[in-house]
Amino acid sequence: MLVFFEQIVAEEDPEEGLLCCKIGVKNLQDVAQSTIKLYPGERIDDLMFNGLKIIQSREVFSFSIDAVLLAEFAAIPKRGRVLDLCTGNGVIPLLLSEKTNGTIDAVEIQPRLADMAKRSVALNGLEDRIRIIEGDLRHYVKKAGYGVYDAVTVNPPYMPVTGGDVNGSEYYAIARHELYCTLEDVVEACARLVKPGGKVTMIHRPSRFLDIMDSLRRWKLEPKRVRFVHHHAKAEATMVLIEALRDGRPDLKLLPPLFVEERNPTAI
Amino acid sequence: MLVFFEQIVAEEDPEEGLLCCKIGVKNLQDVAQSTIKLYPGERIDDLMFNGLKIIQSREVFSFSIDAVLLAEFAAIPKRGRVLDLCTGNGVIPLLLSEKTNGTIDAVEIQPRLADMAKRSVALNGLEDRIRIIEGDLRHYVKKAGYGVYDAVTVNPPYMPVTGGDVNGSEYYAIARHELYCTLEDVVEACARLVKPGGKVTMIHRPSRFLDIMDSLRRWKLEPKRVRFVHHHAKAEATMVLIEALRDGRPDLKLLPPLFVEERNPTAI
Repeated sequence: MLVFFEQIVAEEDPEEGLLCCKIGVKNLQDVAQSTIKLYPGERIDDLMFNGLKIIQSREVFSFSIDAVLLAEFAAIPKRGRVLDLCTGNGVIPLLLSEKTNGTIDAVEIQPRLADMAKRSVALNGLEDRIRIIEGDLRHYVKKAGYGVYDAVTVNPPYMPVTGGDVNGSEYYAIARHELYCTLEDVVEACARLVKPGGKVTMIHRPSRFLDIMDSLRRWKLEPKRVRFVHHHAKAEATMVLIEALRDGRPDLKLLPPLFVEERNPTAI
Repeated sequence: MLVFFEQIVAEEDPEEGLLCCKIGVKNLQDVAQSTIKLYPGERIDDLMFNGLKIIQSREVFSFSIDAVLLAEFAAIPKRGRVLDLCTGNGVIPLLLSEKTNGTIDAVEIQPRLADMAKRSVALNGLEDRIRIIEGDLRHYVKKAGYGVYDAVTVNPPYMPVTGGDVNGSEYYAIARHELYCTLEDVVEACARLVKPGGKVTMIHRPSRFLDIMDSLRRWKLEPKRVRFVHHHAKAEATMVLIEALRDGRPDLKLLPPLFVEERNPTAI
């Protein structure tokens, strides 16, 4: 699976004060009859993957390669219920919709991003299979129930809050820094929401690897597959993909390294 | 550093009932005046590294590529005291002698292997810099003292004893299985023997990786550099090199993967 995207030009809608994307263009025939709202600064990118489209914004949120790697790495059952936490603008549930015939719930704490994600789901006509939930993952188990998901994916904020290092837009700050949830919160939520024997798949930074392993094991999520991601064969790892099994027995596999040349980073 | 070796033919000595290596051959000028004893089945291999030679035996012990990878990976100070645990036939102290001007102590529990190692040290004229100690690493700190080494290396037995799976010669069984020391024993010995701020370097199997990380952290040895070893870029990791710092602060680097084609395995 290779994911690129190209921008679709949006036009201003004087009545709405928003923007309406040019619909009816090639590859968008399925949604040609509806108008998709775009806020200023938003654009529609083509995921170049089975015609999937996604709403992005330089100022608010654009997915990065991490999400694509996670969606590709995750072993998702063909049926059943899948959950994506920290879903951002919903790129992971969109990509996972091609891997499963089941339903995908996706939780995002930021209303602005959850709204983008909902519109992207509508843009792709996937409302019957992907449900975007605006909410806090720390409390989501109360709503969803314990052990109800067959698989959980998460691309959490990478950086601990160490004071003074959080900058840029608030949207990006929340997505990148542990402002609303710590690593431990994320792992706890995954452990509570996934079924016994279900898989939790995560992407994170190698510098946090040992903390992640500690946390997963503490929550009875046994790491089973780990794959380090390097820019090239001579470079240190910059990301790590981790799959853990709820109540699994210890048996870790270190997969072949993944090399990702970043001459053309997908995050814009 | 590339290490190969070639065999040096040994001849029977009718008086001793042992074998004497053909000395005075090219590359062995330095030890040409002494007779090196070889037991039946033993041979002298050329490490192809600055003229170093080592006594090996198919039946008793031959080093494997793991030892070579460990010696290359280990960051050894130019001066000071170095310790190698589970030294086997002493290949690691021999290789490390090229990296440091300091002294190297090396502990081996099996008398037969410690004796081989001592003769290899003598063969290379390194008795003033390498000291082979026959003993149990679990009790060695009582003899050596706490925190006396600037760096510690160890290529420990990889396999836990799970009953029924230990076979082959006793020598190899002890070297490969945790019969005389567990992973926890090894890490405890390293932590007690190394100085604060000193480095402990280990090679092990990826399947034990999480146990190793847990154990190291429990003993205040903070993992700092990790390098996974794969046969090739499409293969799962088969070994892992780990460097930990006594009383270090958490900051793990995942180094570029190491690919080791094993078309010509060095262990014979």
